Amino acid sequence: MTEKKVPIKKAQLEEIIKEFPTPFHLYAEEEIRKNVRRLQAAFSWAPQFKEHFAVKATPNPYILKILREEGCGADCSSLAELIIAEKTGMKGDDIVLTSNVTPFEEYQKARELGAIINIDDISHIPYLEKHAGFSELLSFRYNPGPLRKGGNAIIGEPEEAKYGLTREQIFEAYKTARQKGVCRFGIHTMVISNELDGNYFIETAKMMFDLVVDLYRTLDVRIEYVNLGGGIGIPYRPEEEDVDLELVGKGIKKAYEEKIVANGLHPLKIAMESGRMITGPCGYLVATVLHKKEIYKNYIGLDACMANLMRPAIYGAYHHITVMGKEDWPRDYTYDVTGSLCENNDKFAINRELPKIDIGDLVVIHDTGAHGHAMGFNYNGKLRSAELLLKPDGSVEMIRRAETMDDYFSTLDFSWL
Amino acid sequence: MTEKKVPIKKAQLEEIIKEFPTPFHLYAEEEIRKNVRRLQAAFSWAPQFKEHFAVKATPNPYILKILREEGCGADCSSLAELIIAEKTGMKGDDIVLTSNVTPFEEYQKARELGAIINIDDISHIPYLEKHAGFSELLSFRYNPGPLRKGGNAIIGEPEEAKYGLTREQIFEAYKTARQKGVCRFGIHTMVISNELDGNYFIETAKMMFDLVVDLYRTLDVRIEYVNLGGGIGIPYRPEEEDVDLELVGKGIKKAYEEKIVANGLHPLKIAMESGRMITGPCGYLVATVLHKKEIYKNYIGLDACMANLMRPAIYGAYHHITVMGKEDWPRDYTYDVTGSLCENNDKFAINRELPKIDIGDLVVIHDTGAHGHAMGFNYNGKLRSAELLLKPDGSVEMIRRAETMDDYFSTLDFSWL
Repeated sequence: MTEKKVPIKKAQLEEIIKEFPTPFHLYAEEEIRKNVRRLQAAFSWAPQFKEHFAVKATPNPYILKILREEGCGADCSSLAELIIAEKTGMKGDDIVLTSNVTPFEEYQKARELGAIINIDDISHIPYLEKHAGFSELLSFRYNPGPLRKGGNAIIGEPEEAKYGLTREQIFEAYKTARQKGVCRFGIHTMVISNELDGNYFIETAKMMFDLVVDLYRTLDVRIEYVNLGGGIGIPYRPEEEDVDLELVGKGIKKAYEEKIVANGLHPLKIAMESGRMITGPCGYLVATVLHKKEIYKNYIGLDACMANLMRPAIYGAYHHITVMGKEDWPRDYTYDVTGSLCENNDKFAINRELPKIDIGDLVVIHDTGAHGHAMGFNYNGKLRSAELLLKPDGSVEMIRRAETMDDYFSTLDFSWL
Repeated sequence: MTEKKVPIKKAQLEEIIKEFPTPFHLYAEEEIRKNVRRLQAAFSWAPQFKEHFAVKATPNPYILKILREEGCGADCSSLAELIIAEKTGMKGDDIVLTSNVTPFEEYQKARELGAIINIDDISHIPYLEKHAGFSELLSFRYNPGPLRKGGNAIIGEPEEAKYGLTREQIFEAYKTARQKGVCRFGIHTMVISNELDGNYFIETAKMMFDLVVDLYRTLDVRIEYVNLGGGIGIPYRPEEEDVDLELVGKGIKKAYEEKIVANGLHPLKIAMESGRMITGPCGYLVATVLHKKEIYKNYIGLDACMANLMRPAIYGAYHHITVMGKEDWPRDYTYDVTGSLCENNDKFAINRELPKIDIGDLVVIHDTGAHGHAMGFNYNGKLRSAELLLKPDGSVEMIRRAETMDDYFSTLDFSWL
């Protein structure tokens, strides 16, 4: 069980709303810091463990700054994300570029920043060489394909994933890169997403450690950096549990000793690129009830919509809902909680048991801190909301303004009309 | 069978690309005009038939201007869409507001424009009265619920849809509105989406005509305007066929005579709010092949991604693909055609049989003229593309500029860093 609590009281939220009207995402800084530290503690045994936060999850410089203070780097997979990392003061091996179908502009920007370049395909070796030249440390993304059975629902089976190099290609790639003068190497994989079973991460580490040993034995290539990817899930549902990171850390440590240390390959830097587990549970989408509707079902209509949070509409994902001030009321009503977007899948919850809701109630949708605001669109002319930061001292700062109509129309020309 | 043709030759496209780099959506004006006329011809028998284009599908003032020239109005479901319609010169009953969980700002704007207000819920009668007052002609959206069996895949079963009033509520609503002094009435429904079987539309019309008769008999309410919604599908797959609009028009005419004329309720204005069938087939997403990749499958990587077209990733929707200059080549290669977004579902096609593709090839993705650019997001820092209009004289005009990094960062503040 995971307790789904809102980090502030109703009265405080009402104060915030006087200044910042709903809807908005509220991120709790203290919870973010706690999550990073929990991950780092699980890997405190590892030589120079580094978490590269997956910028995609919450591409906001205020959030990145907090994470940088906690010793994190950035996992970037686009030019825009490289720029955000740069503006936050990151450089060099703080930054990893893991992108696919990579345009050369991204490689050039990564080279300019001195970032670790993690190559997605063997054909990118000459492409990178031609357009940007090699970075000192080159990494390749491994896709085990059918060698690794049982991906999970979001990322699918590895052999159906567009990412990475095959085992055969990985060996070829290091050989080629070395011939071209590269002398420092990393390796990366990412085979699961939003996974709650810690064993998956241990299995992934074992697979990668074996590969590191094989590369050393076969090619005499000494990998100095292994990036185990992200994919640590979060308990969106109250009946789910956090991944036991301590257990994961211990399991990976054991594999490290048996495979890396025993083969004389210590030290090997371990990195991860978690996004969801760091910020996901620390984000709260706050909305106001605009309308109630009773037809064939009972509907609660919010001033937020799927433009603010796409996961329920796209994936049918569960996000817990708290009605502020009614936390202890019996959940004896059943509602569909909807947004106003003109699509029937614009529902934050379907057949959800909740306390009796009234117009004007403040509703908090949990776990929106990753892949929440970031995935929003402007379909149906809907505007993306503001992002607010709840600081440890209880104060609130706006860290992204809400979009305006002018933003929405900014790429259009009306002057000819 | 539907022939999937690109309206320009490869050489012309190459000229366009010199000025406007890929990716972009290209809309063929002539095809758009042809589609509207086809719909209008099918209803030429109807008293003052009006197509209110569903702005959501392609919210671009250049497109709306073309449609206005063809006699269309606008179907708006948000404040932004009302503003686009206004800027395009529409007003009064050119504009219908059909929104749900409607904030009062939308009602006020609709009143200011003199738009037809189509109410989604019975509780909005006092809400509208309080915040904006009644428009001269008031319309209600009907949701037949279990009375209408068999919705289709996209909109679902009517009783699961968040939209509209129940049959009981519809009667109550007209009674209440009349008591409050409203004297002109319309009625609306929208029970299907992207449907290729013309019989659905005839059945919907019959249902609505029956309701118009019942309202007259029971309440002496004379409906003067019936909006049959949209939902006319398009043949995304070459093996599919256009809806036979002539047949639909004839079927609805027969029902009109049997139900409306026979009961002395002629003339009854008929309106529709098609989006997809008007602009969908007239839009082409043009992209360049950046990379080819061979791992467990063969991948073609484009410079477009799901930020430009979400339907394949979200719905698994089929969009036909033409490789320019290779229209007549044998389709003897099988590819996944992907974008560069860091999500494995960023694929425009999976296991698609295509001619041999080379890096640099121009690829055209068909049927992107509706719910294409409009649904795009900025996830992973991806930018939305330009929109171009292909005019009847063969010239091309940019009708929306591509987003820039400045647009992407516009809601962020970096000055404190």
